[in-house]
Amino acid sequence: MQSIETVPSWEDIRESHDAIQSMIHRTPTLTSSSLNAMSGADLFFKCENFQKIGAFKMRGAINAALRLAPEAQQKGLATHSSGNHAQAVALSAKTLGVPAYIVMPEDAPKIKIAATKGYGANITFCQPTITSRTETLEKVVEKVGATFIHPFNDYNVIAGQATAAKELFEDTDELDIIMTPIGGGGLFCGTALTSRYLSPKTKIIGTEPLEVDDAFRSFKSGAIATNETIDTIADGLRTNLGEKTFDILYRFADDVLTVTEEAIVSAMKLVWERMKIIIEPSSAVPIAAVFSNPDRFYGKKIGIVITGGNVDLTKLPFLN
Amino acid sequence: MQSIETVPSWEDIRESHDAIQSMIHRTPTLTSSSLNAMSGADLFFKCENFQKIGAFKMRGAINAALRLAPEAQQKGLATHSSGNHAQAVALSAKTLGVPAYIVMPEDAPKIKIAATKGYGANITFCQPTITSRTETLEKVVEKVGATFIHPFNDYNVIAGQATAAKELFEDTDELDIIMTPIGGGGLFCGTALTSRYLSPKTKIIGTEPLEVDDAFRSFKSGAIATNETIDTIADGLRTNLGEKTFDILYRFADDVLTVTEEAIVSAMKLVWERMKIIIEPSSAVPIAAVFSNPDRFYGKKIGIVITGGNVDLTKLPFLN
Repeated sequence: MQSIETVPSWEDIRESHDAIQSMIHRTPTLTSSSLNAMSGADLFFKCENFQKIGAFKMRGAINAALRLAPEAQQKGLATHSSGNHAQAVALSAKTLGVPAYIVMPEDAPKIKIAATKGYGANITFCQPTITSRTETLEKVVEKVGATFIHPFNDYNVIAGQATAAKELFEDTDELDIIMTPIGGGGLFCGTALTSRYLSPKTKIIGTEPLEVDDAFRSFKSGAIATNETIDTIADGLRTNLGEKTFDILYRFADDVLTVTEEAIVSAMKLVWERMKIIIEPSSAVPIAAVFSNPDRFYGKKIGIVITGGNVDLTKLPFLN
Repeated sequence: MQSIETVPSWEDIRESHDAIQSMIHRTPTLTSSSLNAMSGADLFFKCENFQKIGAFKMRGAINAALRLAPEAQQKGLATHSSGNHAQAVALSAKTLGVPAYIVMPEDAPKIKIAATKGYGANITFCQPTITSRTETLEKVVEKVGATFIHPFNDYNVIAGQATAAKELFEDTDELDIIMTPIGGGGLFCGTALTSRYLSPKTKIIGTEPLEVDDAFRSFKSGAIATNETIDTIADGLRTNLGEKTFDILYRFADDVLTVTEEAIVSAMKLVWERMKIIIEPSSAVPIAAVFSNPDRFYGKKIGIVITGGNVDLTKLPFLN
């Protein structure tokens, strides 16, 4: 397999799915009669919280790793992240039997450091700034010759994330709408591409916290906007779009909606209580959008990608 | 359909499953590569936490209700319970369009009272003693002519609960062992019967908190034992066996194992963290038994019924 150098085609996504299938879980699509009754919509939840490492990120990381030339792959995978992508790169490297080099800010949650170490990754700590992360990563990459796997602004990663929506469409009939949250945009763009290729009539809606609405503003203005603050409970969505993800989002999204922090916490609690599944705050964002815009979604068949379930159980937002 | 008056036959269970199918969810059977790796066993979790009302109890209640004579059914269903069975009887009555009369102790959790009311049940409060519960229920039944649906000591209820294991066997191949927790014994006995009929080689193991080990002592001694205390976090398992459930347990169980409170909390936390599903403490008991007896379960294919997911999210045991 070759590296994907342009916006992924349907053939790229199909080939990616074939390649990664044995290294990921085929996660279930769940429904909830209570949430359907409460929303008046037909909701189909693609449960990537049950994916390896507890989040969809495994799909993109392993796909990018598999598309490296053999000699590059042998030198290992590198990234900087304090979140799910670090674990995805670490487990991808372990799966392929090659080294992983992860740069993490020294104030990263101990549980995430432990999980990443648990997959056998080499961890280098840096200052908790973007500059320090980037510089430290560059030094590591230069020294060991590993390849940097970007968390989202990479067509191989986007094609990997696109496979979640492929499975969701395979498990459902004629969705009116497909929704995901937007952080850096890797999952959203993969979902948008799959949806456009497989089901051109399905509307593609991105969702974001109101407090971190760079994708919303980028979509409305036609130019990449940045976030002034990162003040949201949805810690997976604090990132800005990259130029590749902005380009796909701008061309393929039908709309981007924003939701309040209060709506995110309520939606998260509702899913825990009614569906008995653990979802992280980022995953609650599209569900919050459905409940915040009841007229718009009434009577629609809606596919929603639940992005992950990695939550610190000692810091639940609805306990405060 | 007639009321089942002897130990349910395979035909009784099959007929019950056909009858209730449209009124329950067919819940998924999930696996976890991390829990398999940690235990060295192949675990298959039948997720009744995703069942209507959040617990397996719906199966038995609706089966018992459907087997009432039409005139009895019209007069309504009654029970005393502060837990999942109250909600199961209330929703069964609502499903059939008949009244429900539930006796609840006045100190029952507000959230359970609200849920039961939410299904349109008539609630009568009583003192928080067994005597008061029984007497209040008798008065209600006498006044309105409704039929008391016992939570477990009833062959119709047992045949209903047996359908969970039927689905689990349909979704798996050749289980070496099948396990459930034991409270009053309705689920365990239904599971034991299904297992014996469908897969005679499968070992049937019941599990209990060490602190509430009436079934363990009953199984060992051959006579119904009672609990001195109810000091366990597994609030669904504080009940004693009834004569019908003891009889089936004594004839069909291969073993009964007990586990410590600490093991229950650890197993519950492990499932939340690794499987991203919400299970109640009672559901963690068989999983705790696997992890407390690693040599015994190593390399075995084990079916486990996850009984429910109704947990007060503000009182999680692993936050203390």
